[in-house]
Amino acid sequence: MEYRFADRINNLKPSAIREILKNTDPNVIPLAAGNPAVESFPIAEMREIACKIFDEQAGVAFQYGITEGYPKLRELLRQRLHDKFGMGTENDELLIVSGGQQAIDLATKVMCNEGEIIVSENPAFIGALNTFRSYGAKLKGVDVLDDGMDIEALERTFQENPNVKMLYTIPSFQNPLGTCTCLEKRRAVYDLCVKYGVVILEDNPYGELRFDGEDIPTIKSMDTEGIVIYCGSMSKVMSAGIRVGFVLAPKAIAAKMTVGKQASDVHTNQFFQMLIAEYMEHYDFDGHIQKIRALYKHKSGLMLSAIRETFPKEVGYTIPQGGLFLWCTLPEGADMLAFVQFVKERGVSVVPGVAFNVEEGTPSRCFRLNYSTPSDEKVVEGTRRLGQALQEFLAK
Amino acid sequence: MEYRFADRINNLKPSAIREILKNTDPNVIPLAAGNPAVESFPIAEMREIACKIFDEQAGVAFQYGITEGYPKLRELLRQRLHDKFGMGTENDELLIVSGGQQAIDLATKVMCNEGEIIVSENPAFIGALNTFRSYGAKLKGVDVLDDGMDIEALERTFQENPNVKMLYTIPSFQNPLGTCTCLEKRRAVYDLCVKYGVVILEDNPYGELRFDGEDIPTIKSMDTEGIVIYCGSMSKVMSAGIRVGFVLAPKAIAAKMTVGKQASDVHTNQFFQMLIAEYMEHYDFDGHIQKIRALYKHKSGLMLSAIRETFPKEVGYTIPQGGLFLWCTLPEGADMLAFVQFVKERGVSVVPGVAFNVEEGTPSRCFRLNYSTPSDEKVVEGTRRLGQALQEFLAK
Repeated sequence: MEYRFADRINNLKPSAIREILKNTDPNVIPLAAGNPAVESFPIAEMREIACKIFDEQAGVAFQYGITEGYPKLRELLRQRLHDKFGMGTENDELLIVSGGQQAIDLATKVMCNEGEIIVSENPAFIGALNTFRSYGAKLKGVDVLDDGMDIEALERTFQENPNVKMLYTIPSFQNPLGTCTCLEKRRAVYDLCVKYGVVILEDNPYGELRFDGEDIPTIKSMDTEGIVIYCGSMSKVMSAGIRVGFVLAPKAIAAKMTVGKQASDVHTNQFFQMLIAEYMEHYDFDGHIQKIRALYKHKSGLMLSAIRETFPKEVGYTIPQGGLFLWCTLPEGADMLAFVQFVKERGVSVVPGVAFNVEEGTPSRCFRLNYSTPSDEKVVEGTRRLGQALQEFLAK
Repeated sequence: MEYRFADRINNLKPSAIREILKNTDPNVIPLAAGNPAVESFPIAEMREIACKIFDEQAGVAFQYGITEGYPKLRELLRQRLHDKFGMGTENDELLIVSGGQQAIDLATKVMCNEGEIIVSENPAFIGALNTFRSYGAKLKGVDVLDDGMDIEALERTFQENPNVKMLYTIPSFQNPLGTCTCLEKRRAVYDLCVKYGVVILEDNPYGELRFDGEDIPTIKSMDTEGIVIYCGSMSKVMSAGIRVGFVLAPKAIAAKMTVGKQASDVHTNQFFQMLIAEYMEHYDFDGHIQKIRALYKHKSGLMLSAIRETFPKEVGYTIPQGGLFLWCTLPEGADMLAFVQFVKERGVSVVPGVAFNVEEGTPSRCFRLNYSTPSDEKVVEGTRRLGQALQEFLAK
């Protein structure tokens, strides 16, 4: 039979990164990954809680749950976002979702008709871009400068495209850049979106992972008008494999997302929702996060030292104050895709910058590095190999 | 801000059943549920395996996994479907999904453009209907008779609607009817779909739960042409709350579903995929299923006895040979919605038949009963109350 697929899915390609990672041979050091460090998960405490749930609450943990999420976890997360980050009004609702990716999926599902426009930071997280494409949304990119989006370009984009439905941004430790949007620009983004009636999808999977500098308020914390859908994730602080994230959104939007989630997967894994609730309530969640920050400060430091030692001066790179990534830029005229291949042959994988382009077909001289996944030794060795390869490649 | 939602989500209402269940007071016996019995889950064995995973494989269990699913579980399920049920050719691929609901979601996502037609058994599982609506598909219902769909009506529907993309069916222990499509009709459905180029979405969450009569081959087991997407679920045999299901589909479709799943939730909870794999490999999975069958044979028997004792003769009901449900029909002229309200005031909740109508606005004289969720005592007491209420209501 010749299959006639939906148009939405014909536009989608498998994630370049996941394909790169799948085919990696064991001799290649994967600086291309985006995985958190397994040492950053509180495994021993999770085991303790897991046994307790088996012994005391199996009847709840293994039965169907409600779509909005396990009530205690919703309450604890809501409280935390409010007390620590000043987010959430009585007009907001907190929902549990199956990882941050599902938050993006549901937001798009409820907000965007096919052909409507989503504006995104450029470059941007490829997983989000693919989700937008899977709903037939049209994408417009706004370049990100050192301190966040080019605000003039953002306003111009809104003016030129009256049917923009949503703006996608990762203001803290952006993927792939590793940098933050400054406070002034967060306000400017918010004000512009209020002015043009655009919903903001604020994706903040790395917000808790700041290891240098001062916290910057989220855009959601400024949301008096009810235009911000805020997405958080447990993937970088508890475990990525359990697929638990959350959304703080205006009630009217959250109600639609709930109906959308019923049709997607009914509810998120109940056992791990309960486990996280117990952990947040009875263990030292903040102390645990401090340890993750120290871990990534250490690992990013190793990578930056190796970069300073071995990279040619003409190669640019961002200096992250948190998160998992940094972003390198080759000098003008360099063929980035040829370099990614060149370095892979020398035993290091990196993600080519084109993978993060909002509008396909635009060129890139950049690549993304990750320091959270490999061991300390491999971070150093991989970065040095990269430096050596850069020297050779740029001398050609 | 006045929100402008996507059309797809404006068509959706919250699941009537989930809303009924949410608002139930503790004095009301919920014969409206569709939950498996918690006693049917192998909790002790799951606990044992969970500890082992924490001790030996935490680094895999809590890290990101691959979208297609945990390799060992895919292999075991594929083998089981092949060896026990004769399903799967080398042209098929097995994927792990986040519960049976996601299988339906992904199938629709990859196959159906907005405005294209999905034909469904009528009445049908409300969760599937809502998913179809969430993609803007148009629904056409074909009435189900005692032994499966009205085959002439099915062919007429295909003839009258040249853009039918997919047929949705639960051939075994249908939700809400509780009955099975006979072998002859399964073949007829398959042949018609080959003839008209329609993909079959065969949903089989209850297939393992036969407690009377002989197994009937699945439609997928006849699939030489690669037109059947088969959906299975762990919700009724291991646990509903863990959200693990699977799909056996032609490779070309499975590849698209994988890309769709990357954009939905990246992958399914890795820990419980590993747990199920370990259970299937090293424990007595078939023996466990035998116990569930005995449990539901017992519970359905209790309900049927109470029905025979207390229901007025003019009320019809199906006699299930498996699954979780039976379906009652009031005599002509009776106001079913008034009855559902009447019986609720007498302390029993049932699901009104209209909730399962494929085309909204069509009337129904039916309601659905469930015997798997309440305790034995409550199954008997609830059914007796229902009989009493029927006597009173029909005498009015």
